[in-house]
Amino acid sequence: MIVTMKKDTPQEEVLKLKNELEKLNLQTRDITGDNYIVFGIVGDTTILDKNFILSNPYVENVTRVQAPYKKANRLFHPENTIVEVEGIKIGGNNPIVIIGGPCSIESEKQLMEIAKEVKNAGAVMLRGGAYKPRTSPYAFQGMGIAGLLLMEKAKKEYGLPSVSEMMAVDKIDEFIEHCDIIQIGARNMQNFDLLKAVGKTNKPVLLKRGLSNTIEEWLMSAEYIMAGGNENVILCERGIRTFEKYTRNTLDLSVIPIIKKKSHLPIIIDPSHATGKWDLVESMALAAIAAGADGLLIEVHNKPEEAMSDGPQSLKPENFANLIKKGRKIAEVLGRKI
Amino acid sequence: MIVTMKKDTPQEEVLKLKNELEKLNLQTRDITGDNYIVFGIVGDTTILDKNFILSNPYVENVTRVQAPYKKANRLFHPENTIVEVEGIKIGGNNPIVIIGGPCSIESEKQLMEIAKEVKNAGAVMLRGGAYKPRTSPYAFQGMGIAGLLLMEKAKKEYGLPSVSEMMAVDKIDEFIEHCDIIQIGARNMQNFDLLKAVGKTNKPVLLKRGLSNTIEEWLMSAEYIMAGGNENVILCERGIRTFEKYTRNTLDLSVIPIIKKKSHLPIIIDPSHATGKWDLVESMALAAIAAGADGLLIEVHNKPEEAMSDGPQSLKPENFANLIKKGRKIAEVLGRKI
Amino acid sequence: MIVTMKKDTPQEEVLKLKNELEKLNLQTRDITGDNYIVFGIVGDTTILDKNFILSNPYVENVTRVQAPYKKANRLFHPENTIVEVEGIKIGGNNPIVIIGGPCSIESEKQLMEIAKEVKNAGAVMLRGGAYKPRTSPYAFQGMGIAGLLLMEKAKKEYGLPSVSEMMAVDKIDEFIEHCDIIQIGARNMQNFDLLKAVGKTNKPVLLKRGLSNTIEEWLMSAEYIMAGGNENVILCERGIRTFEKYTRNTLDLSVIPIIKKKSHLPIIIDPSHATGKWDLVESMALAAIAAGADGLLIEVHNKPEEAMSDGPQSLKPENFANLIKKGRKIAEVLGRKI
Amino acid sequence: MIVTMKKDTPQEEVLKLKNELEKLNLQTRDITGDNYIVFGIVGDTTILDKNFILSNPYVENVTRVQAPYKKANRLFHPENTIVEVEGIKIGGNNPIVIIGGPCSIESEKQLMEIAKEVKNAGAVMLRGGAYKPRTSPYAFQGMGIAGLLLMEKAKKEYGLPSVSEMMAVDKIDEFIEHCDIIQIGARNMQNFDLLKAVGKTNKPVLLKRGLSNTIEEWLMSAEYIMAGGNENVILCERGIRTFEKYTRNTLDLSVIPIIKKKSHLPIIIDPSHATGKWDLVESMALAAIAAGADGLLIEVHNKPEEAMSDGPQSLKPENFANLIKKGRKIAEVLGRKI
Repeated sequence: MIVTMKKDTPQEEVLKLKNELEKLNLQTRDITGDNYIVFGIVGDTTILDKNFILSNPYVENVTRVQAPYKKANRLFHPENTIVEVEGIKIGGNNPIVIIGGPCSIESEKQLMEIAKEVKNAGAVMLRGGAYKPRTSPYAFQGMGIAGLLLMEKAKKEYGLPSVSEMMAVDKIDEFIEHCDIIQIGARNMQNFDLLKAVGKTNKPVLLKRGLSNTIEEWLMSAEYIMAGGNENVILCERGIRTFEKYTRNTLDLSVIPIIKKKSHLPIIIDPSHATGKWDLVESMALAAIAAGADGLLIEVHNKPEEAMSDGPQSLKPENFANLIKKGRKIAEVLGRKI
Repeated sequence: MIVTMKKDTPQEEVLKLKNELEKLNLQTRDITGDNYIVFGIVGDTTILDKNFILSNPYVENVTRVQAPYKKANRLFHPENTIVEVEGIKIGGNNPIVIIGGPCSIESEKQLMEIAKEVKNAGAVMLRGGAYKPRTSPYAFQGMGIAGLLLMEKAKKEYGLPSVSEMMAVDKIDEFIEHCDIIQIGARNMQNFDLLKAVGKTNKPVLLKRGLSNTIEEWLMSAEYIMAGGNENVILCERGIRTFEKYTRNTLDLSVIPIIKKKSHLPIIIDPSHATGKWDLVESMALAAIAAGADGLLIEVHNKPEEAMSDGPQSLKPENFANLIKKGRKIAEVLGRKI
Repeated sequence: MIVTMKKDTPQEEVLKLKNELEKLNLQTRDITGDNYIVFGIVGDTTILDKNFILSNPYVENVTRVQAPYKKANRLFHPENTIVEVEGIKIGGNNPIVIIGGPCSIESEKQLMEIAKEVKNAGAVMLRGGAYKPRTSPYAFQGMGIAGLLLMEKAKKEYGLPSVSEMMAVDKIDEFIEHCDIIQIGARNMQNFDLLKAVGKTNKPVLLKRGLSNTIEEWLMSAEYIMAGGNENVILCERGIRTFEKYTRNTLDLSVIPIIKKKSHLPIIIDPSHATGKWDLVESMALAAIAAGADGLLIEVHNKPEEAMSDGPQSLKPENFANLIKKGRKIAEVLGRKI
Repeated sequence: MIVTMKKDTPQEEVLKLKNELEKLNLQTRDITGDNYIVFGIVGDTTILDKNFILSNPYVENVTRVQAPYKKANRLFHPENTIVEVEGIKIGGNNPIVIIGGPCSIESEKQLMEIAKEVKNAGAVMLRGGAYKPRTSPYAFQGMGIAGLLLMEKAKKEYGLPSVSEMMAVDKIDEFIEHCDIIQIGARNMQNFDLLKAVGKTNKPVLLKRGLSNTIEEWLMSAEYIMAGGNENVILCERGIRTFEKYTRNTLDLSVIPIIKKKSHLPIIIDPSHATGKWDLVESMALAAIAAGADGLLIEVHNKPEEAMSDGPQSLKPENFANLIKKGRKIAEVLGRKI
């Protein structure tokens, strides 16, 4: 951490701040120039709150050199983390995991039909929303526990482990019992109570990046879960908010090589929410595979025009199957499988 | 709602979609031009999910004419909503409400000293965080219930009703008993379970705008609370995320006249979180008053350099008192009081 | 175009506005509902300024149904535009065009070495900046005309046509004589005088997307060039500005399928400027190919650590060659060549 | 400047980089910790290109401590710059300068009427566009030189010096002869040829902030002009681009105190382009005054509904007069005049 103090700071104030830092078992090194007083802090600054130093009225600026996350940091954990879900391994050089399914679980008939179709197309897991975060209070809010039970039924029938979003802490027992991967949605990426709750379980967690969160904040949210003891975290990019209006969000595929460099956690891509339009999904999915993604999370619906949510971004099963066929060939070019 | 279908849509598909809409008690009106098939939908489209129509493969585009919120909409509720908290009225032409206090409640001594200072400076309410949403799991997470009890003690001593952030549904009884205004933080603006929970109470709710949320989404979150039966909603702008790095966020003061036009709810401004720097707070606070804000939420600390969170953006009590003096004169120019 | 007028607009004001529009050879169609007065405008609205209607004090809102661009619009020009540069065809199902070279032309030795290397690696064109848009007035501003002459020399030697950025109208004769593709840089995407100037030539133009411009604005800038008579426009995405700080910009690959749908112009990708970091370039380049890009523009330097600009994002020749090898295989999967 | 090198960098590579820096008359100071090799650079780093260091493959990160602008920097120029235009002083504690007028100059009659009205309302300068940067090639592009001559005529008649946007270098003689303040528009903030051209004159320059530019980049563009020898630079904020769709841009008023801290140049606000809606202009203008702006640039039209550009954001003269009346009282509270 680098601390810049104002040019005219009294020498005693500089010493006072350095002393405070040394009390925290940190050391300081001077690099003062002509126009500023600058020093570096050496030691474990992960737990040091940048704002603590910034509130000193003589301090102009504080810059981190070291990342504020530790458990999620590849620097301290060079090997890839492999998350295992019912025998399926996610991350490292394992096959790219394809997760398909409807935005919302709507009925037994709907879910079973879609499960069958995504299975046939080559998916190895089933996604489906039982609790839905909807912008409008007047929109369909999901089937709740009944939806989770249908996911369990589909798993028995087709052997597809389930991914479903948990929105509130009080549903954790339901999810532990009836769901294989707990999804933390983009809007809840910094719902810290929720992160702490899943951190205390040993369920795999799929952590979506928030709409306007930096990669560092995203890794800090992973750190929350890992600091609680649960290291089974899968990161999922689903588009960030920009000024562009044509797409629902802007898919940031550069996170794939960045996450692989900064962290050891698996990274998967959700091109459906990122674009909001089914006819953009295939090209973004193939791009994600080419960029090195560890998996894809894709919305599939047998009748998109009757879907209770997110119909416009849902692929029909035949398009989903086609996408996987092409994706498989691209994966091979990179020495991976689907 | 305006629906644009592709040029070459078969006539039967156009009719089919129109029929489906008419079954929902809506009517359609043609405005078709040369290159697109366009029609308008007349009736109560508030409950109509735009995506439902967009998932029709022949539909190119759907545009809302009418806002998707009703209870928060000034069109259907022309009078200003006045939220009353222990005799203090917020909104309309009532005096501008000044709320001051520390980011985190740290100890009884700290809170009592600050409460006394903000009271003397002219504040009418006390803010203080008992549960803190921190980016890092290693940072101070707040005193919890003990903090709320200290807020209650400060209220007894200095007559200042309290504002404090609630982060999880399971704390609602605590807040109903020990807090006067429940704050929903920016990161939880779309934590819909939390919104539903406070919607079932009759406690005033201070709803912060999310870091990257549009005004329409913000009003939809207010709608969630109001749809539950609680109409005591105060909106609070605290800066949005942009590419600018010098400030913590970018304060969007244009929301003040916009909210007053679109909605009847009171709107207050938090210049502390918006800027992240105490020396920008005064000018932004005065600007907010000049733009017509109904209140200000400001972080004040007696020793910012020792604050356990957000020290860099906390005003010292004397600066806070000064700000109120100037603000009062600006309020007078606009025919309002502080 | 859909016009929404306020609920209480006097009938005569509605008629007055409709009459004005009808004088412009447009027709109107009513779709009025309960809370707003709404009508559609039918006819060629491309030339109609939305703001002209919006300035009517009774108008609440105006929404375009039809895109404001015509010549760049696939709706009116279904076949792909193929831009031909010295026998190389860009766009359609032609081979993916690889353009490599240094950010700045620094010396004859540097340029010739790099030209040789990119040629050997498989590039078919050479990029190189003679005039450099630098944020700082104290930074290297480019070799100017001497640089363009070196590009010409490299072309003679290695058969690589050149791409170089033109920053001011008064250099147009130089570029027409010595350069094969004129690049309009991101910062000049809405430098309308420059667009008009290249619109009057028949040189191919590579139009970069602005740092914060929407796809529609980008196509409108293409429209400027095409309206001048020059239809040889190649679009180039180079990342947009977001809140993320780790990368220089955020690469928006979804523009590839979107441009192909909305327009008939070729679209190429510049992963170097988009990421700002050489170790992210390969994965983003492969992703671009997988998403269907018509070409790649990549910075290559033989000694990146001595480059006079953009060293951190420049690939070494061997990495560039590697990228092309992998890219070729991905292209094949999609039925294309490099 | 702080340089972070990778943990495993060979000692000789660290020495090599340090030697190169020392050759540039800079010194280095070690602050190496456990996980990184870190050193600071002491000396005049203004002219040092950050990317030069970043392209060293062993370098992880480079952070500036010192701002990259010098002439625009308050650190080296503590007194406020006062720009004088025909006897009117802008900046410091001088009266707040009100500049009013139409977006486009449309005719003699229009301009003279508006000039008279803004003069009567209290404006001291006249704005008016002769060359218009329009998104669409089919929109009105301005009257050109004829417009500038009308501005000159209005000046003779009403004593109002003129502000008008210059879009291309080849018009500089026209502007020097017929215009009092040359405006560099938002889209041209990084048109470096244009900046260099006005830098060689001694005309006052009004430099608008780009749609997505940081404050540092804006000051670097001012530095371009000043480095050329022209120190008469006035900064103008006109809103930045965000995800919010209701306003044309998001007005960032925090730039007022920030510019006053970082620079000595005057800062004025354009609430018309920032909001795009006339009914938001008054509150944003008053807020700007309360925040300490040195001036306002406001669009005024006698018949907004007939304006050839930007009608929706133009104030009628009576609303403009009203705004000035209220603004004057707010200015007084802060010890300033209008």
